[in-house]
Amino acid sequence: MMLGVLGGMGPLASADFMRQLTLLTQAERDQDHVPALLWSDPRVPDRTAARLGKGEDPLPMLLQGIRGIEAAGCNAVAIPCNTAHGWFDAMQAATKLPILHIVDAAREELDRLGVEDGPIGLMGTAGTLAMGLYQGRIGRECLVPEPALMESHVSPGIALVKANRVHDAYAPLAEAARILRNRGARAVVLGCTEIPLGIAAGEAMEFPVVDTVAALARAAIRHMGFTAA
Amino acid sequence: MMLGVLGGMGPLASADFMRQLTLLTQAERDQDHVPALLWSDPRVPDRTAARLGKGEDPLPMLLQGIRGIEAAGCNAVAIPCNTAHGWFDAMQAATKLPILHIVDAAREELDRLGVEDGPIGLMGTAGTLAMGLYQGRIGRECLVPEPALMESHVSPGIALVKANRVHDAYAPLAEAARILRNRGARAVVLGCTEIPLGIAAGEAMEFPVVDTVAALARAAIRHMGFTAA
Repeated sequence: MMLGVLGGMGPLASADFMRQLTLLTQAERDQDHVPALLWSDPRVPDRTAARLGKGEDPLPMLLQGIRGIEAAGCNAVAIPCNTAHGWFDAMQAATKLPILHIVDAAREELDRLGVEDGPIGLMGTAGTLAMGLYQGRIGRECLVPEPALMESHVSPGIALVKANRVHDAYAPLAEAARILRNRGARAVVLGCTEIPLGIAAGEAMEFPVVDTVAALARAAIRHMGFTAA
Repeated sequence: MMLGVLGGMGPLASADFMRQLTLLTQAERDQDHVPALLWSDPRVPDRTAARLGKGEDPLPMLLQGIRGIEAAGCNAVAIPCNTAHGWFDAMQAATKLPILHIVDAAREELDRLGVEDGPIGLMGTAGTLAMGLYQGRIGRECLVPEPALMESHVSPGIALVKANRVHDAYAPLAEAARILRNRGARAVVLGCTEIPLGIAAGEAMEFPVVDTVAALARAAIRHMGFTAA
């Protein structure tokens, strides 16, 4: 009984997923924690570039990771990368293992946080927003950053995290979240697994945010039959 | 080309190893990072109990992890658990993959930090200290905590990290490190991968400490042909 984690997208988000999977499990000793295999191959071609029709298809490498996870004897898959969920159906069609969907985990987290009805803010990569990954499935109206704000704040903030510069990433990402809040968002979903790492590097937001890394970790803990703390 | 990480001992230390592996690599984008497979099975029987002759042998489960890492096509192994290195020779004999030794990584870190000649302090599990894992191989005189200090501070501090209580772990672990410093240690080696997690949860030590998680990450980055930041 082992959770397969298809990661490396980016690698810091994968490490944070493993950390949250541990910290969010009720445990007193090593043996109380969720057995997990992290397949962290950062060489997967850029998901956003592919989604926008400007880059190599990541699907073959995603499926290679799924094959490795299957071969190791895992019995479920979690993918701590929102944009990679653009290939969710193709991955799910290629394996009998259940793949947890990060948008479902985010929806459950909105419920857990008791976020009242109304629009939510949605931050993510240009790829995630363009394909409408959240819109519809999350069951809420989604307020997304204007293209100018994506270019000036969100996309550079994500890139800074991928370059290990989490402290520099805080200001642009936090400002973008506040702009969505001021437009009427009840909560802001951090729909790219790099964004919570930047947002965590400074002062806490003064409104509810959904960390999709933590949300997916909680979903995985429940799915594996453990108790979330 | 992929690094195999035999982890889960404990799982928080494994997650921290993956984080340090990422943060300590010179990188601008996902694709610049070290591909890695983390086999995190926290069900490995307690290494210290086994070492002290009071618990189940962990070797069969350690070898199961090594087999999984081999099957995935990895070409080197890092084990972010000091006490598990008590079975290093048996693991190395069972695989053709090179296994990086955490004590060698700690020795390199002492050199990198420019720690002057003289005795070093050594903290670790009772198992690590009893088997003399560091003594000899590290090439320095090792000052270890007295048994009473192990029982009152070091062992409880390690257990608190394994129970996800890193903030509570700080005081006992930091005090034990200061006692070794006051006995004349030039630096203190945190020779259990849980200890740096506790020490990082409070004020920084006012003398050099060797984080064996970070030291092993640096050794792995170099071994894999990447550049450490």
